[in-house]
Amino acid sequence: MIHPSTDTGSLGDLTTPCLLLDLQRMRRNIERLAQHLAGLNGTLRPHVKTSKCIEVTREILAGGHVNGITVSTLQEAEYFFAHGCSDILYAVGIVPAKLAAVADLTRRGCDIKIVLDSLEIAAAVAADAAQRQVTHRVMIELDSDGHRSGVRFDDDSLLDIARIIADSPHCDLVGVMTHAGESYHCRDAQSLLALAHQERDTSIAAAERIRAAGFPCPVVSIGSTPTALAIDNLDGVTEVRAGVYVFFDLVMAGIGVCDQSEIALSVLVSVSGYQKDRNRVITDGGWMALSRDRGTQSQAVDYGYGAVLDNECRAIEDLVVSGASQEHGMISRRDSTAPLPYQQLPLGGLLRILPNHACATAAQFDEFVVVDDNNHVIDRWSRTRGW
Amino acid sequence: MIHPSTDTGSLGDLTTPCLLLDLQRMRRNIERLAQHLAGLNGTLRPHVKTSKCIEVTREILAGGHVNGITVSTLQEAEYFFAHGCSDILYAVGIVPAKLAAVADLTRRGCDIKIVLDSLEIAAAVAADAAQRQVTHRVMIELDSDGHRSGVRFDDDSLLDIARIIADSPHCDLVGVMTHAGESYHCRDAQSLLALAHQERDTSIAAAERIRAAGFPCPVVSIGSTPTALAIDNLDGVTEVRAGVYVFFDLVMAGIGVCDQSEIALSVLVSVSGYQKDRNRVITDGGWMALSRDRGTQSQAVDYGYGAVLDNECRAIEDLVVSGASQEHGMISRRDSTAPLPYQQLPLGGLLRILPNHACATAAQFDEFVVVDDNNHVIDRWSRTRGW
Repeated sequence: MIHPSTDTGSLGDLTTPCLLLDLQRMRRNIERLAQHLAGLNGTLRPHVKTSKCIEVTREILAGGHVNGITVSTLQEAEYFFAHGCSDILYAVGIVPAKLAAVADLTRRGCDIKIVLDSLEIAAAVAADAAQRQVTHRVMIELDSDGHRSGVRFDDDSLLDIARIIADSPHCDLVGVMTHAGESYHCRDAQSLLALAHQERDTSIAAAERIRAAGFPCPVVSIGSTPTALAIDNLDGVTEVRAGVYVFFDLVMAGIGVCDQSEIALSVLVSVSGYQKDRNRVITDGGWMALSRDRGTQSQAVDYGYGAVLDNECRAIEDLVVSGASQEHGMISRRDSTAPLPYQQLPLGGLLRILPNHACATAAQFDEFVVVDDNNHVIDRWSRTRGW
Repeated sequence: MIHPSTDTGSLGDLTTPCLLLDLQRMRRNIERLAQHLAGLNGTLRPHVKTSKCIEVTREILAGGHVNGITVSTLQEAEYFFAHGCSDILYAVGIVPAKLAAVADLTRRGCDIKIVLDSLEIAAAVAADAAQRQVTHRVMIELDSDGHRSGVRFDDDSLLDIARIIADSPHCDLVGVMTHAGESYHCRDAQSLLALAHQERDTSIAAAERIRAAGFPCPVVSIGSTPTALAIDNLDGVTEVRAGVYVFFDLVMAGIGVCDQSEIALSVLVSVSGYQKDRNRVITDGGWMALSRDRGTQSQAVDYGYGAVLDNECRAIEDLVVSGASQEHGMISRRDSTAPLPYQQLPLGGLLRILPNHACATAAQFDEFVVVDDNNHVIDRWSRTRGW
């Protein structure tokens, strides 16, 4: 933002594009998962990579039943540790070159846990801990759904990895963790529940194999926003991780885990021009603001770079951001050639764009402009970034 | 970056992911366009949205034949003006709410030019200038290829817009400008040259219409990286704009305007894991580092989220980043099921990823790590961002 403005005011005082956070929607989303997990005697370890913001994280922590946080970078770990969060799971497979930074956090009192999924990295972590005379706290990453990384619960190497860590006097084997990322490809409640069961059951099975072999495995950590909201029994699970649920987005709505009216983030943009012969409207919200994420492209309804709302958050017919260059957004109809409702899209007027993927869109901004139910600006919360 | 490191050193000292800028490649790219334009008696107005970095821009300015700069946000205008660039074209259609910031720059001595393409915005700009008692310097944006925004050279409204600006005692009609963004869809030299001619000829025709009607139109500004490199005669054109040519990227290589060996940007990543049963390798370079840009998806060769090189910039067979989550990159073969060359992809080892789109990937980082021909780190240059 170029022009400093007061912390309160109307949307019209903002420099577009900017990132709006609807506080009440966010609080309802936080409450929804908290209630769901409370009903299952579950504990949450929120993934703060979505917000990268201490104020958002404090809103989650205020709800209770929280076990610490999950981060995706060591930079996030540093930021949240500096803001008082000391129980941190760094949930991206560790590479040995980052162990110096991990050790540094540990020595300063941060209870940081790292994840790995191979014998080679386990051996490197054990050797590093011995050399530095520091305790590395380790979780074994499980592959519960073929999504990305991790070792399978029934893989021979699982117990060998556990042995390397458990046998190291300088490492703690904290437990197992998995992320059912394939849940983003589910399209109905039945398949989501099945995947949530698979995520849970394979993790418990891995933990039981490790314990049966005589190694400790106190923590069983699972989660993704769709499976966290779908799971119906958490016996044997010690914590659930989820991130995007605080904001939700069009991808989550497409999966069916939220309604568009629950999406707490939007990008405020200004109409800068018309191309009436092509039946489209130009805005100042291009991919630099919306991100290049096209997560709804593979869903039943493709919203392009985002769904178009008026400045009070009411959907405008079937309008979407059909194209984007760096600082230009192109608005068209999604499924019709009828003329655009230009009277609802005045030149210089404000629109709100719902994001495909909250994590990606939020990352394009350095701050959230926090608004209340009356679309009054009530605060600005900064985000961290980098590695 | 968490760990402060010295300004010189080897790639192994860097925290991954980070953004590498090959200084010699960049200088060769800058020299190539400078030579090309010099041969046509052309003048360059570089688009600095690609780098958002004063050091990169100074390298361009040092080549001479430069007419000032082009920016895509008022934040860029502020940043570059603070660093001594005072001749600035803000090349995104102005919205009235931003005229206060424009006027503020003008009053501080910045020669900032704004663009517009409608009667309504022209009238708003004229009214704003009169009210603020400041001179708004205006260029009319032309649509030369149906790409995005602008008024067509033969549209009735062109002269009406020119009249509003020319008749306003508080506005200067600086000229016309266009961006042949459709050049990104060209696939051969012949179609590129044809589009470059179209971009030039429609702009000159628009300028001649404006002059014939008795209004001033001193500047004819055209450009995109592909058309700037293709154009063979600039008679009647006063300046050429281009941005991504300083770095190039896989999309530009796919169009045929550069070779992969000329791409000056890459993302340095670390190998964090294997999924040998799926024949893929996991790195710490996900979409947060690479961006979500999939610009090569519609080209003859789809590189996923980027092409994979070793840490000395040699391509590793046909490896690409086939998938990406926030902080994980998945490396696979592009067009074969042969086993990956794991010995070239050691756990913890470094790889370099060539970006689809330099502007989008660079925007994910706050600095360039500048390397020399020997892959020695010689400097760090910061970028600006935001609006």
